[in-house]
Amino acid sequence: MSLLVTGSIGIDTVTTPHGVSENCLGGSSIYFSMAASFFGPVRLLGVIGPDCPFDLAEVFAGRHVDLTGLEIRKNSKTFRWKGTYAEKMDDRTTDLLELNVLAEDPPAIPDKYKDSNFVFLANTTPALQLQLLSQIEAPDFVAADTMDCWIHGHLDDLTNLLKRIQCLIINEQEARLLAAEPNLVKAAGKVLEMGPRVVIIKKGESGSLMCDNDGQIFLLPAYPAAQVKDPTGAGDSFAGALMGYLAKDGKTDSHSLKKAIAYGTVVASFAIADFSLSGLTAISRDDIERRLEMLRNLTSF
Amino acid sequence: MSLLVTGSIGIDTVTTPHGVSENCLGGSSIYFSMAASFFGPVRLLGVIGPDCPFDLAEVFAGRHVDLTGLEIRKNSKTFRWKGTYAEKMDDRTTDLLELNVLAEDPPAIPDKYKDSNFVFLANTTPALQLQLLSQIEAPDFVAADTMDCWIHGHLDDLTNLLKRIQCLIINEQEARLLAAEPNLVKAAGKVLEMGPRVVIIKKGESGSLMCDNDGQIFLLPAYPAAQVKDPTGAGDSFAGALMGYLAKDGKTDSHSLKKAIAYGTVVASFAIADFSLSGLTAISRDDIERRLEMLRNLTSF
Repeated sequence: MSLLVTGSIGIDTVTTPHGVSENCLGGSSIYFSMAASFFGPVRLLGVIGPDCPFDLAEVFAGRHVDLTGLEIRKNSKTFRWKGTYAEKMDDRTTDLLELNVLAEDPPAIPDKYKDSNFVFLANTTPALQLQLLSQIEAPDFVAADTMDCWIHGHLDDLTNLLKRIQCLIINEQEARLLAAEPNLVKAAGKVLEMGPRVVIIKKGESGSLMCDNDGQIFLLPAYPAAQVKDPTGAGDSFAGALMGYLAKDGKTDSHSLKKAIAYGTVVASFAIADFSLSGLTAISRDDIERRLEMLRNLTSF
Repeated sequence: MSLLVTGSIGIDTVTTPHGVSENCLGGSSIYFSMAASFFGPVRLLGVIGPDCPFDLAEVFAGRHVDLTGLEIRKNSKTFRWKGTYAEKMDDRTTDLLELNVLAEDPPAIPDKYKDSNFVFLANTTPALQLQLLSQIEAPDFVAADTMDCWIHGHLDDLTNLLKRIQCLIINEQEARLLAAEPNLVKAAGKVLEMGPRVVIIKKGESGSLMCDNDGQIFLLPAYPAAQVKDPTGAGDSFAGALMGYLAKDGKTDSHSLKKAIAYGTVVASFAIADFSLSGLTAISRDDIERRLEMLRNLTSF
C-alpha cells in the first residue's frame, strides 16, 4: 500500500565524540524515506531552497522514493541544524537552528499523493500536521511524532491531532509529559484515551514500548550496537522501517505492529552506526533480516 | 544443589510517593532468601542484634530457608536504614544509616554451609566478600554484587574478588564506572576480562543485559509493572530468584542463565509492588509462572 511521509529536509552539522560531519544531508523525511525504502515505495513531501547542495534523486537512486512532492522553493533557504552530542550520546545541544523554508508555507501535497493509505507526519507544529493530514483523502493508518514544545505550547492543536491519527510515536519524556503520569505503561494508557489506537514509546538505548487498545503490550530492547557514531535520525529511521514494513502488507494488527517495531529497532541500530545516511546506505535488506534474527535470539528465553 | 547467601539483615524505614513503611524488615539477604525460596532451599548467613523485632523463623515459616547461619549478637544492634524515594522512584536518598552490627566482625560460616555449591555474596566491602568466600570449600558458581563506593575506594580488593567469582551482578552506572566505558556492551566485555564468566547488568525500569564469555548476549526488558510502591529490595529479589532457579538444576549454561534472568525479572516485579516483603509473601510459585509466560508474550515478535 502507498506510504507518504511529510517532514523536514535539512543540512546538518553534527558533532559527536566520534567526529564531526559538516553540512551533511539530514531531516526527518530523509531518514524516514531511506529506512522505509528497504520495504517498499515511499512518497516524500518536503521543501528545500536552491542552496541545498544535495541532489535527492541521486541520494535515493534505485530506492523507490517518489520525489514528486519535493519542492525547491526559489528565494528561500534550506533548513539548517547544527548540534553536539554529549559523551554518552544520550543528550544533545542545538548549536544553531535556521528554520528558513520550514518557517514559511508548507509544500502543497501533489494530487497523486492524496490517495495515500499510510501516512507519517514527522515532528512539526500540530497545526501543520493537521493541515497536511486534511489533504489526504482517506488514509488507513496515520502515525505522527511530536515533541515537548508542542505539548507545552500547542496542546489544543495536538489534542485535535490525536483524535485523527491511529498511532503516536514519541519518546518516553514526551509520553510522561503528555499524560502527566510518570509510569510509562499508565502514561501509554492515558495517551490511548486521547485518540490513537496504538502508542509507541521510544526509550533510546533502552528500546521501545508499544501499547494498543486491544490491551496488547510489547517491549523490545534496543539492539546492543557496539558502534554508535551519530544518533541523529535514529527515531525517524525507526519510524521509517516500522511504517515501511506495515505499509508493505497493509496489516496493522498487534502481531504486525510487534514485527514492525522489531524492524524499526534493527534499522535504527544501523542508522546510528555512522554519520548522516552512511549507516543506512551501507546495508542491504539481507543485513536487516540477519540482524532481526539476531535480535530475536538476543531477547528470547 | 545448595545455595548460600551472605548479606545484610536490616530494619528499614522507607518513604515513597505511595506511603511510609516504618521499621519494617529489610536487608539484602532477606529479600534474596525470600525470592530464592520459591525455587528451592536457601542457606542464610547474617547477623542481627537482640533489638531486632522480627522472628525470622516465623518470617520464613514453610519456606526452606535454613537459619543455622543467623547470629543474634549480644551487646550489639541491628543494622538500620531509612530512605526516601523521589517521585519517579528511580532515585533515592539515604536519610539515616546505622551500620551497627554490620561494622563489627562478620558472622562465622557454620560447618554445614561450607559445602555450598551456589553462593551469592550480597553487596558489602570486597574484602569481606573475599573472606566469606574463602571459607566455602569448593563452590561451583559464585555471584556477587558490588557498588560504586567499592569501585572508587577498594578497587584492589574488588579486582581480587572478580578473579574468584563466576558472575557479577551490578547496575548500569556501576558497570560503566568499573569498566571506564560508557557503552554497556563494551563495558560488559571489559568486566568479563577482569575474571567472571558472566556479567549481568541491572538497568532498573529498562530491564537487564547479560553477557557471558561464550559470546552470548541477552537483553530482557523489566516487566511493565503497573503498580510500583517500593523499589527497595528489587535487585536482591532479582538475584535471589536468579540464583534460586540456577541452583535448583545446577546448570549455568547460557540457556539456563537467560531463563534465570527472566525469573529474576518477574520476581523483582512482584517485590516492588508493595512495601517490604509484602509483594513477595503475597504470591505463589504459580503466580511467578504465569507472569513468566506473560513476560515471554510481551517480548516476543
